[in-house]
Amino acid sequence: MASELPEITLKAIGVVRSGIKQPPGAGYSWERIISDIVVDSSLTEALDNLEEFSHIIVLYWMHQSTVSGQLPTKVHPMAKQELPVVGLFATRSPHRPNPVGKATVRLLQRRDNILKVQGLDAIDGTPVIDIKPYIPGYDSVSNATVPSWVNNR
Amino acid sequence: MASELPEITLKAIGVVRSGIKQPPGAGYSWERIISDIVVDSSLTEALDNLEEFSHIIVLYWMHQSTVSGQLPTKVHPMAKQELPVVGLFATRSPHRPNPVGKATVRLLQRRDNILKVQGLDAIDGTPVIDIKPYIPGYDSVSNATVPSWVNNR
Repeated sequence: MASELPEITLKAIGVVRSGIKQPPGAGYSWERIISDIVVDSSLTEALDNLEEFSHIIVLYWMHQSTVSGQLPTKVHPMAKQELPVVGLFATRSPHRPNPVGKATVRLLQRRDNILKVQGLDAIDGTPVIDIKPYIPGYDSVSNATVPSWVNNR
Repeated sequence: MASELPEITLKAIGVVRSGIKQPPGAGYSWERIISDIVVDSSLTEALDNLEEFSHIIVLYWMHQSTVSGQLPTKVHPMAKQELPVVGLFATRSPHRPNPVGKATVRLLQRRDNILKVQGLDAIDGTPVIDIKPYIPGYDSVSNATVPSWVNNR
């Protein structure tokens, strides 16, 4: 089957500018971190009206998570040894076959091609792949359940 | 700036199998559509424990949305002429610089490398880029606001 799975080429649309220059490790609280997303200036107009949304979804390339060699298929969530080993896709580990991150963040301000956001868990220099408006109901689930080890993080 | 934005190469991890063979057009209701995500069998173990979550996030490549030529930077949301023209990134239009879709869907069943899901707005043959567990609080926002034209869809 692997042979029929296509390769996909993306071109970053922008980059994260943040005071966080190195991965701070699992469990770091990004909630209050404020950063800029600098979008390619050719796309400035495409950002119009985004500021009418309070929150946006950012897809980004976790460029420091591209490891060489074989990825483990099982990991401890949040790299915590006290949590049970689970499948890689049952976690949000950045070390995954395609290290694409997805964050929902507050949009504080838009100035031309620069978006100021709060809570983006991406370090300085992270390439941004896409930006979407956050739409309650489509992006949120009211009755979702998770295993108990998620709440023991 | 465009010159410093990197190219990114992904390799699909799986493919969508669905009865929906062609894009049904904007506004189609996918809510009850049930489809399979067939993951590459080399990654079967990495799906372990995913079934402990009620919902998952699917990132996928909207392969039929790769248009040739210049993309418009402004569009009518949902292709509805009665809605005001807005910036492309303020919409969920599939025709975007990197046509990566993001859906939150109910996980009905996992059997080995096959995930049965409900509500995935992707046609048959869509390459899947990543699968993540949906985690309330991280992925949802309780106080998000949207412009009025979103509710007029």
